[in-house]
Amino acid sequence: MTDEKKDITKESPNGIVETKFYDFDALTLESGEVLSPVRIAYETYGKLNAAKDNAILLCHALSGDAHVAGFHAGDKKPGWWEFLIGPGRAFDTDKYFVICSNVIGSCNGSTGPASINPKTGKEFRMNFPAVSIRDMVNAQAKLVDSFGIFKLFSVAGGSMGGMQVLEWAYSYPERVRTAIPIATTFRHSAQQIAFNVLGRIAIKNDPAWNKGEYAGNYTGPGSDAGGPVDGLGLARMIGHITYMSDDSMERKFGREVKTLDSAGKPIDSVFQVEGFLRHQGEAFVKRFDANAYIYITQALDNFDLGNKQELIKHFSGSKTKFLVISYSHDWIYPAKQSKEIVRVLKYSWVNVTYCEIAQDYGHDAFLIPHEEQGVLISNFLENVRKGE
Amino acid sequence: MTDEKKDITKESPNGIVETKFYDFDALTLESGEVLSPVRIAYETYGKLNAAKDNAILLCHALSGDAHVAGFHAGDKKPGWWEFLIGPGRAFDTDKYFVICSNVIGSCNGSTGPASINPKTGKEFRMNFPAVSIRDMVNAQAKLVDSFGIFKLFSVAGGSMGGMQVLEWAYSYPERVRTAIPIATTFRHSAQQIAFNVLGRIAIKNDPAWNKGEYAGNYTGPGSDAGGPVDGLGLARMIGHITYMSDDSMERKFGREVKTLDSAGKPIDSVFQVEGFLRHQGEAFVKRFDANAYIYITQALDNFDLGNKQELIKHFSGSKTKFLVISYSHDWIYPAKQSKEIVRVLKYSWVNVTYCEIAQDYGHDAFLIPHEEQGVLISNFLENVRKGE
Repeated sequence: MTDEKKDITKESPNGIVETKFYDFDALTLESGEVLSPVRIAYETYGKLNAAKDNAILLCHALSGDAHVAGFHAGDKKPGWWEFLIGPGRAFDTDKYFVICSNVIGSCNGSTGPASINPKTGKEFRMNFPAVSIRDMVNAQAKLVDSFGIFKLFSVAGGSMGGMQVLEWAYSYPERVRTAIPIATTFRHSAQQIAFNVLGRIAIKNDPAWNKGEYAGNYTGPGSDAGGPVDGLGLARMIGHITYMSDDSMERKFGREVKTLDSAGKPIDSVFQVEGFLRHQGEAFVKRFDANAYIYITQALDNFDLGNKQELIKHFSGSKTKFLVISYSHDWIYPAKQSKEIVRVLKYSWVNVTYCEIAQDYGHDAFLIPHEEQGVLISNFLENVRKGE
Repeated sequence: MTDEKKDITKESPNGIVETKFYDFDALTLESGEVLSPVRIAYETYGKLNAAKDNAILLCHALSGDAHVAGFHAGDKKPGWWEFLIGPGRAFDTDKYFVICSNVIGSCNGSTGPASINPKTGKEFRMNFPAVSIRDMVNAQAKLVDSFGIFKLFSVAGGSMGGMQVLEWAYSYPERVRTAIPIATTFRHSAQQIAFNVLGRIAIKNDPAWNKGEYAGNYTGPGSDAGGPVDGLGLARMIGHITYMSDDSMERKFGREVKTLDSAGKPIDSVFQVEGFLRHQGEAFVKRFDANAYIYITQALDNFDLGNKQELIKHFSGSKTKFLVISYSHDWIYPAKQSKEIVRVLKYSWVNVTYCEIAQDYGHDAFLIPHEEQGVLISNFLENVRKGE
């Protein structure tokens, strides 16, 4: 062991990456309102081939961003799906051109409530128009167009990312060769809505929220986070419990008690799980905008592609091939919701493969490195690529 | 149908009841601190027999009180376990003398953080000493002593009430002939602690909490509720999601949207589940003290009777007969925790019967009228009474 600093970027085959931006004039939203101008933050990995038929779009979850792999200069952690992206990995950058963009309504570079409203010269805040999962996907479609790509080889993502996958397959079936919706649903249940409701109430209860007009303007790394840190922190903690399973929390924390702070100073003893949750909340408020949290969770709750009969009718004739993945210990996006997706697609005579992965992590499992998810995705894509 | 007002008290065989109070000088708490004086609010039903061997103690959950059955004068709702109490019901008042008392640390008549500290002449607030489930049970034992009762025919309760049942059987085995712990556990898991942590953070985040020094002093019906209503309301909503199952929420609310308020006035549309949760929060803050919520949830989280080996050793030789009940859709106090109780008791050679009741209500099921719970309890008690 030496004190020499290790160049951690060498650990990623994706190396140093930069977020890029695509600007376009206007997007008509589902509500009828027009968002103008629109900026989409995105990153790419691998090379687009001459036929432009090797592009894979990855869609992020609620609090995610365009930075899906590699390192930003100076960062200590790689992107959120690093372990699935790169040469020889599931989304193999020797074969595929991988795109990931930040959704509109968010706060990591794409247009959202913390962006400047050109009509007023001030931040939109709660005057930002309501955005839907469909709006997010329509904005992504403009980005995909900008590369001259018509048909995506695949669209993949978990949780809210999986909703975008389903929306892509629903709205643009001819543009989606394969779709990989992970730990997701056609529509939120009452319980899923309820947890998001509490997150929004936690934010709005915080006097520092001030009806959305708070100081601090988080629009991506390096910008100024602020506002209702207690409320947003609590919203994140509520969310975080739902991302873990009973078993994984028990394994990680049990009833262990923390009696020293991170500097080794004695503190009033608290259960370790409390320390962990507080840390999650504190870290989150430095990297997310409270109003964006309200807008995006509302989009999640409003998402509803239709009832079973409508969906069967709509998907009938679709040539998209699906790989549906769920996780055994995911109680907030339970396997029964993934099975409902499979059931609808089977009734529609659509080509669909389903796997439930046994992992006790809970909903977060799709973001935690483990072998099986990568193998399933890699083999599914390779079968299609080889003309299976 | 006429406009005649129906005397709803006629619907309860328990009629009009009153909360009574038992005062005693002092209780030494587990912490070593002495609480003095101590008041216990309680109610009784049926008659104590001459042998004083027909008493059943019922223990309430987190937000419960001594008012377990019958009507308080003027009330529209009966006590919280009305359907189980009365002549011919599970806890048959023709046979048994039923006692229910409010736990210390609570706010419904027994000494708690909203009580006056005799040393200062002001409310204890956050200077109230920490209380444990064992302290609650020791206070109940004093009340039971005051009737001249040594051995209880049964101790029964769900959730935190079930913890008190386990504590009675642990600390006073010779005083407990039968024990009925329902939907409960020997100790909270990390997930159970986590949800309570968030409730406490929600309260403490509310500036109106003011480190416990708020206006309003809720000490039971008719007293003045106040303080951190946003924070306590949110804490209750967090709790309430955990009391229901995914299935029961879906059946009750689904994705239905509410567009009118209770007066029929149009409102910004919200999911019905949001309206329901908000209503639960608003109703709760009128009948509960925020500091008491903090103290009692902390007692729940701290409860831990010992590890499996210690418990097996401790219960070996116990003559108490147990009926352990869990509910199929209770995810916050899951059946596996009840099975762990059964396992420990079986290893200890203790007489134990276990039933899991199939009901999709979730944790709340033990408080919702349904036939099976009553039959199981009634037959269990009758078998013992007849000398089985």
